[in-house]
Amino acid sequence: MNTASSDTLRVPLDELGEQIRAALRSLGLGEAHVQAMARVIVAGQRDACQSHGIYRVLTCAQTVHAGKVDLQAEPVVESDGSAVVRVDARRAFSPLAFERSLPVLAEAAHRHGVAALAIRHCFHFSALWPEIEAVVAHGLAALALTPSHAWVAPAGGHRPVFGTNPVAFGWPRPGPYPLVFDFATSAIARGDLELHRRTGTPLPSGCGVDADGHPSIDPVAIAGGAMHTFGGHKGSALAMMVELMGGALIGDWTSRESLDFDQGAGAAPCHGELILAFDPARLGGADAADGARRAEEMFGAITVQGARLPSQRRFEARERSLREGATVPSGLYREILAMAAADA
Amino acid sequence: MNTASSDTLRVPLDELGEQIRAALRSLGLGEAHVQAMARVIVAGQRDACQSHGIYRVLTCAQTVHAGKVDLQAEPVVESDGSAVVRVDARRAFSPLAFERSLPVLAEAAHRHGVAALAIRHCFHFSALWPEIEAVVAHGLAALALTPSHAWVAPAGGHRPVFGTNPVAFGWPRPGPYPLVFDFATSAIARGDLELHRRTGTPLPSGCGVDADGHPSIDPVAIAGGAMHTFGGHKGSALAMMVELMGGALIGDWTSRESLDFDQGAGAAPCHGELILAFDPARLGGADAADGARRAEEMFGAITVQGARLPSQRRFEARERSLREGATVPSGLYREILAMAAADA
Repeated sequence: MNTASSDTLRVPLDELGEQIRAALRSLGLGEAHVQAMARVIVAGQRDACQSHGIYRVLTCAQTVHAGKVDLQAEPVVESDGSAVVRVDARRAFSPLAFERSLPVLAEAAHRHGVAALAIRHCFHFSALWPEIEAVVAHGLAALALTPSHAWVAPAGGHRPVFGTNPVAFGWPRPGPYPLVFDFATSAIARGDLELHRRTGTPLPSGCGVDADGHPSIDPVAIAGGAMHTFGGHKGSALAMMVELMGGALIGDWTSRESLDFDQGAGAAPCHGELILAFDPARLGGADAADGARRAEEMFGAITVQGARLPSQRRFEARERSLREGATVPSGLYREILAMAAADA
Repeated sequence: MNTASSDTLRVPLDELGEQIRAALRSLGLGEAHVQAMARVIVAGQRDACQSHGIYRVLTCAQTVHAGKVDLQAEPVVESDGSAVVRVDARRAFSPLAFERSLPVLAEAAHRHGVAALAIRHCFHFSALWPEIEAVVAHGLAALALTPSHAWVAPAGGHRPVFGTNPVAFGWPRPGPYPLVFDFATSAIARGDLELHRRTGTPLPSGCGVDADGHPSIDPVAIAGGAMHTFGGHKGSALAMMVELMGGALIGDWTSRESLDFDQGAGAAPCHGELILAFDPARLGGADAADGARRAEEMFGAITVQGARLPSQRRFEARERSLREGATVPSGLYREILAMAAADA
């Protein structure tokens, strides 16, 4: 590792992966989980997504210490050859369940044209974009959604019902990078609220309400009240759709049930996730190549006017990290190294 | 019909349907198209959706007069038994293509667990919620999206790329009404902009920009510039997803191509639509009944705090229309009656 600035380091990705894996092993996780989880954590830090990078090792530790996550469970993939693939994560972390079922999902999508992966009973652990990118690498378009903990009020209400409920989408493109977006349907990410809470700085207006339902910019008050969705009643409708598609539809928990189960432990949410995969060759038929071309023309019409495509900043960070190592906060990295040393 | 107020009438739904069908016949439309289109127009007026009610007869007339829509074409449904159903509307209006393919979509969704309907080459003609309700009536969850004409700029840009690009979703519930939402990903509906343009009233701030890219509240200036999406970069990402899923993925046109094809005629958009259908029994398996229950519990947690579910106002209007007839603007209805008389 090299010093990048006084409070960040530049760490080669191989070295970063080694330390993360050792830190995860120190928590008692089985090797298959260690490998799968380290892959998404390295990817997050590599892409400068601080909330999904090495910081996640600490939330992982907190979840392990809460005692409800299974550290060893091998996921059970169920496929009857239909367009629906179900995987039971058996109350373990989600990345291994996703990795084990990805080839089955991709095969089903190519065979049937569209397919759905229902990940069930997992401690959800990663941004959605690494999963989206992995599905898109099979030449598929992908849509993913998952509940979280109930922290967000519906439009017109003031008490939490929804989670931060991210929605992510990907589209295959020529060249190294797909089109990918991944956003919370809450007005701000939960990590942003936590950051403001730690630093004692007020939030922008419109982020949430206090326990009495009054608009607030105080992160502590909003944490005790409710966050808003983004985009008013439309964002609220989407957040509801995520509860239904990523929860009720696949027979798994809603964000309210996940938070009830947590009982204040501050562990990762425990519920399910729905990933849809679409084969453009099957849906577009003879016009599939034309479809790929008109997607590129649309991207060109966006960037030519100076607007950015989603994930562009993330891909720029990735290129730099691959060349020079990932930028890592020094203090946080010292904590990871201490955990890793405990494993040795 | 009865006089409801000085400028609206109360018209029984049977009578409304008869007049709409006669008006559509006067345009030279084939009888199968007349029947399918009248069903969605009556449904719109019944539910007090003014922009999708009898007003649509006039946009239909304008589209017919533009000369590009096929008045007779029988849609061609293609199904190879996979989870993808494709229908070629052959440049006719969309409702007949949807009706002809709905049973095939429902069968595919029940067989495979998830299925996709790609409606292609249609003049899109209806809100998405009547289609969503029809899919949900088969015990399925449904998600629909379609491009429109390119009137909306991407976040960070100022020139139109996206259409108003609606997204609609439905979930089956016990009782007469499903959970349904249907919203434009633009900051306001195009019909609202047109209404403000006709009445010369300013729009709320944040709806769009003028031709030079400056924020404006003047509907004429925005019509010559670009509308914004709702919800900033998140709404913009969704609008892009609609172009990709309802356009490029199914090998059909984007909103830019639809507007180019229109050449200023003011006809309905011409492109495709994607409808996804999900069988909760297949995705939820043994937990499907539990899933239905926890969806109802979530709806209860929303309404108990005084927030409304989407479409609640529309269902209330429907109940009243079924009892007392639909409320119809008198002047508009006179235009429809004049068209209908021309058919007699």
